[in-house]
Amino acid sequence: MKKDELTLVRQIRDRFSFSEGVGIGDDAAVLNFKQPVLLTTDLMIEDVHFDLSYTSFYHLGFKIVSVNVSDIYAMGGDFKAFLFSAGIPETVSEEDFKELFDGIENALKHYRGFLIGGDLSKSEKVVLSGFAVGEASEPVLRKGAEPGDLILITSFLGLSSAGLNLLKSLPDDKRKVIKSIKDFKKYPPIIEIDGINELLQRHLMPVARNPERFKHIAKAMMDISDGLLIDLHRLCEENNVGAEIYLEDIPKHPAVIEVAEYLNIDAMKFILSGGEDYELLVISERNAQEFGLTAVGRIVEEKGIYLVHPDKGKIPVKPEGWQHF
Amino acid sequence: MKKDELTLVRQIRDRFSFSEGVGIGDDAAVLNFKQPVLLTTDLMIEDVHFDLSYTSFYHLGFKIVSVNVSDIYAMGGDFKAFLFSAGIPETVSEEDFKELFDGIENALKHYRGFLIGGDLSKSEKVVLSGFAVGEASEPVLRKGAEPGDLILITSFLGLSSAGLNLLKSLPDDKRKVIKSIKDFKKYPPIIEIDGINELLQRHLMPVARNPERFKHIAKAMMDISDGLLIDLHRLCEENNVGAEIYLEDIPKHPAVIEVAEYLNIDAMKFILSGGEDYELLVISERNAQEFGLTAVGRIVEEKGIYLVHPDKGKIPVKPEGWQHF
Repeated sequence: MKKDELTLVRQIRDRFSFSEGVGIGDDAAVLNFKQPVLLTTDLMIEDVHFDLSYTSFYHLGFKIVSVNVSDIYAMGGDFKAFLFSAGIPETVSEEDFKELFDGIENALKHYRGFLIGGDLSKSEKVVLSGFAVGEASEPVLRKGAEPGDLILITSFLGLSSAGLNLLKSLPDDKRKVIKSIKDFKKYPPIIEIDGINELLQRHLMPVARNPERFKHIAKAMMDISDGLLIDLHRLCEENNVGAEIYLEDIPKHPAVIEVAEYLNIDAMKFILSGGEDYELLVISERNAQEFGLTAVGRIVEEKGIYLVHPDKGKIPVKPEGWQHF
Repeated sequence: MKKDELTLVRQIRDRFSFSEGVGIGDDAAVLNFKQPVLLTTDLMIEDVHFDLSYTSFYHLGFKIVSVNVSDIYAMGGDFKAFLFSAGIPETVSEEDFKELFDGIENALKHYRGFLIGGDLSKSEKVVLSGFAVGEASEPVLRKGAEPGDLILITSFLGLSSAGLNLLKSLPDDKRKVIKSIKDFKKYPPIIEIDGINELLQRHLMPVARNPERFKHIAKAMMDISDGLLIDLHRLCEENNVGAEIYLEDIPKHPAVIEVAEYLNIDAMKFILSGGEDYELLVISERNAQEFGLTAVGRIVEEKGIYLVHPDKGKIPVKPEGWQHF
């Protein structure tokens, strides 16, 4: 990139206006809140969280917003504003830089929030750091689950990790095509599996699940970012309880099953331990099918996570999922 | 590091308790505010912002807090809470990881704020991303300066960049010693220049300047993070005005002069264009010596930044300072 930092910041600022307070361009942003404020941050680093051979800067911009908004939604909150810092290698083109902010802008339009600040730096690898701000009159915490409560999920799991594994298996020419896609729904299937683009989109440009309609029935809630088992384990630890998962009740997305067969990987690995779906894990006293939620297990007194097989019975499992260290 | 992420997060959480809301361990932190909320973020990346041959993880922890708090103070705000994300290479030891959080903890004690959230990731280079949250009943913006106003600074400038240039010139054995220093004030001078440790500390572990006592006289304010000229240029652009700097009135720290001679660099380059001092630039109708502020110039109608030499008169200058692109 040839543009200097002052010019870049001015362009970004002109693009993202914010009329309800002080936005980009001062030492700090200024916002007014009437309810408790929610604050969260998530980091995405090249070659750790994403691979630029099949991920476009547009995807990255959209995703860094989604993963942060997901944490606000997981608290039952309303998303308000976003701060965004980036480390950008000198080799990144002005076009890619623009696409990054196109992705951010479209995600912010979708979630109805504002970009209000950030920081730009040089870097060897692409580094994206997002910071989401929201509010909630009554935040829903991870704490609150009790034995007997149902474990609900908002939709199919494993799509993102099935998508990721498929992406890794693709040759260069297909990767290039995927980088060019902005709307996966409108694009013909990239390989001959029904619903395959949904999996790719879920990995590259996930959309956070808004619990607005059902948060009132949630005693505890969190987003499933590192995989069902590990995230459920975290929630259980927080509440000094355990959990049973009924394998028969877990919804299985046909494309996840097909990709698993295609790659010769156990589909349940994607579903139980695959990260980055950004569905919600909802703990409730009652079922909530009317809101599209699916009950897949129950909170129990005995600590630990247990898988209940239809024939083999109850088996304790180690929580597995995405861990960095 | 051998510890897994769950263990690391648990240890950090046990260490940083937060009783006024929800802190580390949920999807998002929850805080209550009665005044307008200030939000800011700053990024520090290995080999761009710091060099691990003379910078310890303790210094980094302290500095990532200070540079973010500085932005809250620059708005005339009270600092409340901090979120911290890090990308950590696998080669970083558990001891260094602990030192990083020692630095954060000590800085937070100094500024009386709480660590309330963050994100940890693997990374090739060390990446530190801080988010500071504060509040202010009446934030002081960059906007507000008018022709005739005085330009005040809170103390000597150029210490950090003189310190940085000196650090870069040092041999390996001296760099190692510097890495081990936690309190530069108590340490004998690392080279034979009076006040040299103050310069090193200013670069490695800067302390943000709290404007509590004088913010009521500020019409506009910002922190000097990228150098006096470039930051003043930014403030002037914001107000559609220009500025004159009276070179005679600028305080010159003796150690900055000595280091400049030692390195054969023009001391005024450090003072006018050196970044990272984290002093404040205060625009006021009146002088404020009683608060330790020094008037170094005046806002003028004519756009541009002008240096006023005692003999050569008024000369326009290009804003120079730390720019990333």
